[in-house]
Amino acid sequence: MTVLILTSDEDVTADMVVARLYATGTPVLRLDPADLPGKATLSVEYRDGDVHGDLSVHGRTVCVHALRSVWMRRPGEPAAHAAHASPWLTAETRQALFGMLHSSPARWMNHPHSAEQARLKPWQLRVAHHSGFAVPPTVFTTAPRMAREFAEQHREVVVKAASGPPRGGPGPELMLPTTLIGPDADFAAVAAGPALLQRYIPKRADIRLTSVGTRLFAARKTAEPHQIDGRYGDTGHLWEPVTAPERIQASVREYVTRAGLAYAAFDFAEDLDGTWWFLECNQGGQFGFVELESGLPISAAVAGWLTDGDGAE
Amino acid sequence: MTVLILTSDEDVTADMVVARLYATGTPVLRLDPADLPGKATLSVEYRDGDVHGDLSVHGRTVCVHALRSVWMRRPGEPAAHAAHASPWLTAETRQALFGMLHSSPARWMNHPHSAEQARLKPWQLRVAHHSGFAVPPTVFTTAPRMAREFAEQHREVVVKAASGPPRGGPGPELMLPTTLIGPDADFAAVAAGPALLQRYIPKRADIRLTSVGTRLFAARKTAEPHQIDGRYGDTGHLWEPVTAPERIQASVREYVTRAGLAYAAFDFAEDLDGTWWFLECNQGGQFGFVELESGLPISAAVAGWLTDGDGAE
Repeated sequence: MTVLILTSDEDVTADMVVARLYATGTPVLRLDPADLPGKATLSVEYRDGDVHGDLSVHGRTVCVHALRSVWMRRPGEPAAHAAHASPWLTAETRQALFGMLHSSPARWMNHPHSAEQARLKPWQLRVAHHSGFAVPPTVFTTAPRMAREFAEQHREVVVKAASGPPRGGPGPELMLPTTLIGPDADFAAVAAGPALLQRYIPKRADIRLTSVGTRLFAARKTAEPHQIDGRYGDTGHLWEPVTAPERIQASVREYVTRAGLAYAAFDFAEDLDGTWWFLECNQGGQFGFVELESGLPISAAVAGWLTDGDGAE
Repeated sequence: MTVLILTSDEDVTADMVVARLYATGTPVLRLDPADLPGKATLSVEYRDGDVHGDLSVHGRTVCVHALRSVWMRRPGEPAAHAAHASPWLTAETRQALFGMLHSSPARWMNHPHSAEQARLKPWQLRVAHHSGFAVPPTVFTTAPRMAREFAEQHREVVVKAASGPPRGGPGPELMLPTTLIGPDADFAAVAAGPALLQRYIPKRADIRLTSVGTRLFAARKTAEPHQIDGRYGDTGHLWEPVTAPERIQASVREYVTRAGLAYAAFDFAEDLDGTWWFLECNQGGQFGFVELESGLPISAAVAGWLTDGDGAE
């Protein structure tokens, strides 16, 4: 029974998990859907009332029924590397690959449908609230008046991207750090593109909590006074293991159950009173940097889940 | 309580339903997500543990909690018509619009997650089989050898697109009719793009069965001998109402329940013995042409579902 890892070639986080899987002797097939067709071939056949499928990468062939799990780590667009790439070839190749995989009995980390829903920020905030987290007031608007009223009400607000930084453009990847603004900002540009504004939480630490199946790994990094976004640049502090309060652990379990996520990376701001405020839950968040600094055994947990699930089967 | 219709401006099928909704006095808001932001504004705010959202189109504003239903008819890409359109603006605008709509209590025709899965052909064939339909053997492959062996085994096979015709290119829309081929065809090109091959079913009629909630509308069009694809060109025959066999009705209900579809358009080939063979189920299939020829009241049924659901609530 093989673990299928869908990701691009350069992915250190995936490398860490692959090393663990090799160490335990679990067969692994790694594929970037962008290399389909070309470096890989696939066939899916419907006959006798069932779907039979084979996937071959670098001469190794795996039957779709022999897939133990699928890790949607950071897959490229299907057929993106093809000699005659086109939106249509991408659509056809997606049909072939995911049509086949959706017919396999494999576990998913994460299932594409759960992942798609879990990416939506407004949806996240509502589920976070219903899971018992403290959630800062947030507005997402194309109306300058709404943005200004929100900033006037809360005085200090941060503006951030809902979908992450722009990718895939011609230039270098843009960094888009969360930025603090006040009610005197110019909100006219909001009409040209939706802005996500959130009440600023003065914090004494950033928290990254990684959920893998039923296991939780929390890390804490002290924040400088008035620090807004600790993701970019060196703050002089490192990620250190921390024990999540029991109330937070219960909320995390509630959230991932509602969202149907086998893997999730939660970001919290720890305020001056010690409250953990839910900022976001990234279903595809990196964990390599946290593991390297904190020593938390996240890649081993991911490898374990891909091999055995939560051990319940 | 308002019905939200997400579709492009030119959509005769939507026009038919809008006319029905107007006739019954049901408030309607029609929006092409491509016109966001610009012709429409939206705000979604998280406060006090709930999501509040407003959507304004042409000066009419609807609260997200006052949405009765959302019809995903043929929506454009979010922000595609924006002055500074970009993949990132599309991603942010999708976040804002669908994040808001996923927080509303509205019924969906169809829910995006069900729609996404239901588009996958290999998945369709398996679900069709488990729902009791007769399904022709099919292969979907990037391996020329597999394609040739399939054609040799079944002698007469059709090749078709899995994802529909190419769209959105610079030239006119390409037509891609299903084509009959034999085992002597050249299968080398299969390595460059996956090919979907299916055993040819000699047929005496095409069947289009439209499922709207719990209501079924079947139409039949006589086929010329040796006709392959009756969708393009004039065959001299019209769509006429027909009663679906009870076994087919039961299978349709099973399929749409498994797939979670409020709307679905099934295509069958009626063979020389009268068996209906499942060819595909298009969760977003047109129905205007069938209604106009056959007189089947499909648009009224869609309007009814958008207004009242299946009447069960």
